[in-house]
Amino acid sequence: MIVNNLYIENDTLFFGGHSTVDLAEKYGSPIYVMDEQKIRENCRKYVNGMKKYFGDNAKPFYASKACSFKRIYNIVESEGMGVDVVSVGEIYTAFKSGYNMKNVCFHSNSKNDYDINFAMDCGVGCFVVDNVEELDAIDCFAGERGIKQKILFRVTPGIDTHTYEAVNTGKVDSKFGFPIETGAAMEITKYALAKEHIDLAGFHCHVGSQLFESSVFIRSAEIMLQFIAEVKSTLGYEAKELDLGGGYGVRYTENDPTIDIEDNIRQVAEYFKKKCSELNINEPAVSMEPGRSIVADAGITLYKVGNVKRIEGYKNYVAIDGGMTDNPRYALYESEYTVIAADKANEPCDFLCDLVGKCCESGDIIQPKVMLPESIQRGDLVAVLTTGAYNFSMASNYNRIPRLPVIMVNGDESYVAVKGETLEDIISRDI
Amino acid sequence: MIVNNLYIENDTLFFGGHSTVDLAEKYGSPIYVMDEQKIRENCRKYVNGMKKYFGDNAKPFYASKACSFKRIYNIVESEGMGVDVVSVGEIYTAFKSGYNMKNVCFHSNSKNDYDINFAMDCGVGCFVVDNVEELDAIDCFAGERGIKQKILFRVTPGIDTHTYEAVNTGKVDSKFGFPIETGAAMEITKYALAKEHIDLAGFHCHVGSQLFESSVFIRSAEIMLQFIAEVKSTLGYEAKELDLGGGYGVRYTENDPTIDIEDNIRQVAEYFKKKCSELNINEPAVSMEPGRSIVADAGITLYKVGNVKRIEGYKNYVAIDGGMTDNPRYALYESEYTVIAADKANEPCDFLCDLVGKCCESGDIIQPKVMLPESIQRGDLVAVLTTGAYNFSMASNYNRIPRLPVIMVNGDESYVAVKGETLEDIISRDI
Repeated sequence: MIVNNLYIENDTLFFGGHSTVDLAEKYGSPIYVMDEQKIRENCRKYVNGMKKYFGDNAKPFYASKACSFKRIYNIVESEGMGVDVVSVGEIYTAFKSGYNMKNVCFHSNSKNDYDINFAMDCGVGCFVVDNVEELDAIDCFAGERGIKQKILFRVTPGIDTHTYEAVNTGKVDSKFGFPIETGAAMEITKYALAKEHIDLAGFHCHVGSQLFESSVFIRSAEIMLQFIAEVKSTLGYEAKELDLGGGYGVRYTENDPTIDIEDNIRQVAEYFKKKCSELNINEPAVSMEPGRSIVADAGITLYKVGNVKRIEGYKNYVAIDGGMTDNPRYALYESEYTVIAADKANEPCDFLCDLVGKCCESGDIIQPKVMLPESIQRGDLVAVLTTGAYNFSMASNYNRIPRLPVIMVNGDESYVAVKGETLEDIISRDI
Repeated sequence: MIVNNLYIENDTLFFGGHSTVDLAEKYGSPIYVMDEQKIRENCRKYVNGMKKYFGDNAKPFYASKACSFKRIYNIVESEGMGVDVVSVGEIYTAFKSGYNMKNVCFHSNSKNDYDINFAMDCGVGCFVVDNVEELDAIDCFAGERGIKQKILFRVTPGIDTHTYEAVNTGKVDSKFGFPIETGAAMEITKYALAKEHIDLAGFHCHVGSQLFESSVFIRSAEIMLQFIAEVKSTLGYEAKELDLGGGYGVRYTENDPTIDIEDNIRQVAEYFKKKCSELNINEPAVSMEPGRSIVADAGITLYKVGNVKRIEGYKNYVAIDGGMTDNPRYALYESEYTVIAADKANEPCDFLCDLVGKCCESGDIIQPKVMLPESIQRGDLVAVLTTGAYNFSMASNYNRIPRLPVIMVNGDESYVAVKGETLEDIISRDI
């Protein structure tokens, strides 16, 4: 199995120690299921690895856009993680969960005045500033409150990671941040240091998602530390913090590599310490922002089959009771997933088919070219693995299909973390 | 202007007779704005054209997945349109709007038992049956109620329309319906005619979206009528109804052609009558299912600019206060849109930029390579045109960004048709 909390017993897929058949019976279908213990295990890899190799000042922040609901903030907080939020909606969710807002870092490439004031009113600890317009606005609103607002600057180190363009955000040509190459990052640093109500703590970069090795992190650490040294010599300002951005990749299928996160953190930290010493700068406190690798493999989605269509000479289709409304990632990115017949998990898989959703759209495909048992039929249970990141968070009501509940398993227990949407919810905003 | 309800006055874009600047001041930003009179004008093209050329039995059905909220059903009903729904959520919305459910046609390629029972309980007039599993279920549940349920069969005529694959659903290899070519359509017809609680009214096909000429409709009418004739001679059953599926294309940009819908309906009807006579079959009552062409150009989206980023030697970005959460169509299909600086609508547009959203994702682009005024800056109002279809309906809470209200203009009046989402709405399902 691609994730260590999955196993098969008597033809049934088990997840986090729970029978998926029993879960579907108890909570219905389709449902997202998440494993609290797996989330905690993923958090600990970063928390422990960073403390061990970067030192006590280092801290991972959970990038909550991967999956944001109240309970998640409680879980990651109890594991010692900060959180990174990207909108007023995520700030409000963290706030209402009781999360300590000092440990919240506010991203977003387009913060308007309302967003900034809202974040300040909630006591958000740090803003990651993306552009000069919002720097001016933050300075202004911090002034109105008589405070100095802690910020980091988002800087683009100009690395092309050769990953899929949509998740590749560290190159010069990006909607995010200030490029080092053009001089914009140096210029804004100088400008910020003269601002009365801005407390510049350091710099942030993010070079892309789904990275399976440390070379890109090492390369961006190199560029960022060189920039920090340049800023020191040019402006006499030494950054106290450096955020290296998003975390490591996760396994969607058996073709994806496994990765030892702690050992990768060790490699980056070794390089980092050597480079700081070489450049004669103090070691900034390092942070990272894993999102996907905290929750993706801690989630699966369970569906029931609606029909099986065998088009002789062409293709086979297995249609389920969910689709791009609960998982738009194949439609958006052609993302790969592993699919298992959860109630026939030990049957030989010799039926090649496309797993498609119930939306009225040809592009509503969960995964093409899947192998399932020949006997698959209406009513069977299908599990799509590694759906804990960017499924719940990207879900829509396209076709007015209600969004799914999130069921959390935790050892012997299970509980509803997010209620499923009702038909009354669907029309609740219609006048 | 690409749509006839748009004009510019004193540098301000007007939509449906309303200043977009005034609308944004009154209702905030970002907002969807729709023009009730334009929706009605679009309905009438189909209602009048079909009655005139196909006869009094002909009827257009509004494909409400394009944009579904209660008020829309009232508007199209008062224009004499049926509606096509694809889910329990759309059925419930139509039902709660007071729409006459006899005029509702229920699609979907994966109706489970709950969906079927729900539709019957609401008195849905007709089911478009996609597969044998649901035919059996409909027969069973109709039997339990002691009724005969009216159905059409969805048939795939095997036409490759050379449009974008995701909106091309009439070819043999499709998750939808029964192919004629493989014999599956004939077989299911025979099977259905023997069912006690099934009232087979005829056949349905849908060959794709964004079609700007009648040739594809004529070709699918040809194949469908030949099939009807074959069914007549093989099984002695003559179809009473033929649904030709989705409507004509709409203009997203000036590169899209204009189209005379009534005249196109005339061309299809002429061919249809000739072919029925040639094949010696009674003319079935014809229906069509326009969705996009009823609402797309009756909608625009208004955004405020958050920042303007000029990356020397690379690219320019204008970031707004919305994004792929309210319009995922560029991210999904690379759809084209026309963009106008709504408060600087008469200024020369010599600033080449990408219009990007506020989501924390590089792929969050509304439209690349847009020309806007050089003076564009934080706080300016931007209008994206032709967003009435598949924007509201596909919206998500990605990044926990609240979904937008729909503001309807109607002559001199304006009203809220769908309320904007609040932060309380965002966390309402979190336990």
